[in-house]
Amino acid sequence: MQFARLGPIGEEIPVAIDEDGRVLDLRSLTSDITGAFLASDPGPAQLVRHARDAGDLPELTGADTMRRGAPVARPGKVVCIGLNYRDHAAETGADIPAEPIVFMKDPSTVVGPDDTVLVPRGSEKTDWEVELAVVVGRTARYCDSAADAAGCIAGYAVANDVSERAFQLERGGQWDKGKSCETFNPLGPWLVTADAVDPADLRMRLTVNGEVRQDGTTADMVFDPVEVVRYLSQFMVLRPGDVINTGTPAGVALGGGAPYLRPGDVVECSIDGLGTQRQTMGAA
Amino acid sequence: MQFARLGPIGEEIPVAIDEDGRVLDLRSLTSDITGAFLASDPGPAQLVRHARDAGDLPELTGADTMRRGAPVARPGKVVCIGLNYRDHAAETGADIPAEPIVFMKDPSTVVGPDDTVLVPRGSEKTDWEVELAVVVGRTARYCDSAADAAGCIAGYAVANDVSERAFQLERGGQWDKGKSCETFNPLGPWLVTADAVDPADLRMRLTVNGEVRQDGTTADMVFDPVEVVRYLSQFMVLRPGDVINTGTPAGVALGGGAPYLRPGDVVECSIDGLGTQRQTMGAA
Repeated sequence: MQFARLGPIGEEIPVAIDEDGRVLDLRSLTSDITGAFLASDPGPAQLVRHARDAGDLPELTGADTMRRGAPVARPGKVVCIGLNYRDHAAETGADIPAEPIVFMKDPSTVVGPDDTVLVPRGSEKTDWEVELAVVVGRTARYCDSAADAAGCIAGYAVANDVSERAFQLERGGQWDKGKSCETFNPLGPWLVTADAVDPADLRMRLTVNGEVRQDGTTADMVFDPVEVVRYLSQFMVLRPGDVINTGTPAGVALGGGAPYLRPGDVVECSIDGLGTQRQTMGAA
Repeated sequence: MQFARLGPIGEEIPVAIDEDGRVLDLRSLTSDITGAFLASDPGPAQLVRHARDAGDLPELTGADTMRRGAPVARPGKVVCIGLNYRDHAAETGADIPAEPIVFMKDPSTVVGPDDTVLVPRGSEKTDWEVELAVVVGRTARYCDSAADAAGCIAGYAVANDVSERAFQLERGGQWDKGKSCETFNPLGPWLVTADAVDPADLRMRLTVNGEVRQDGTTADMVFDPVEVVRYLSQFMVLRPGDVINTGTPAGVALGGGAPYLRPGDVVECSIDGLGTQRQTMGAA
């Protein structure tokens, strides 16, 4: 099952895309794809199947032409894992971390997968990072096993963890400053439920103006999504609707092989089974 | 004017405390002290005065005995400024920063000023930090003057930016990991509106089990609250209801003069004009 939110900014309609590709309008079931909806019993996919089979969910007409919003409304937080791919650690000159490196983004940076991303004023080093995003479905607090942690994952989505490298690395030592600029977290198009995708070896690609910049696989992650959730839950409470960006493979501009982003550039990010997002860069 | 939220967790009643010390029940005016309320025209204090003078705001009975919640409901983010007091930078062996150091806390760490604060599992270095918190009242995006930035401040409150130093400094390099544990941001008791307090030279004190640990003044800040808002607005969009912890003066356990916190310890934080908060430490 996939969840998505379609329509103008602030007026997105919650939908599910079922196994037959039907786009089901969920407004009779929930006002939005929120943490509370994701945490509902017996699980949102089950809820949707029941309502669909009872004939309560009309198909949404015109879905193909509607703007795609982020598939989760108002995440409570966005947590990020740094240097979580072996090849990306190497290209930035860093050691493979002994335990996850954790930083945060302003959750209001989350935008739709195809929304304009703004190069910040004064930026010369706006960079891309295609990432597997975990969406939390149940509260994770001191998970004591992998099974515990896995049960807290609602599903997965594509994220672009946009990063201003000078702000991140040359302006005071903590990374958050270069991670939280306006529009810096395109998310989606879909939240694919955890039962419908195995995140162990998904190919992930990013192009800029059609040229391939990142071409990796989640199999190269140092800490896999379940371990990331288990680990984070020792340091913070993860709540339904929270988003975790689990790190990026090699091929970012910081690695030296390509120029940083400018207004007008077009970035496409895709992960097998999770869809493709496409942003045109603008100027803040 | 002061704003506060009184009552059990999740059922707080929004109140204002006016110049005569009356505790006014705001439920006829707003469902809660939210970003939207703080951003309302012609400003929340003015709104309350009009409604009070029209006889529309009853006094709340029993306010003295009610639990005090954080004075802002569900902040969208909590941004923190590191090493922003000259004496605290010195005690931690750091240089005075050339520009603000920025990091973030999980906004769900915000709890009431007198709520139990939990020492995390596995923690041996849970520390305190009394701080002047800025509450944002209007959207701040690329503020180009101090006046612009000042106009975005709704008011001020006391915060305890609780920090686990081993998690923060010895577990991967980014500070957020030691800043986002459950209950790690007591806030309040009041949000004092910006027109009612001058934050330039406020004495701030913190005691542990009655012994003074921090005794400083906001006059020792490297970057004052207005400059902090102006600066941050170049890197992120500050939105109504967001909270900024502006740094702590000398006297934290990390400085070496006192033991870290244990369950049962009692921490009191106060800032002139902004009230006192009192937490008993528990175990997670």
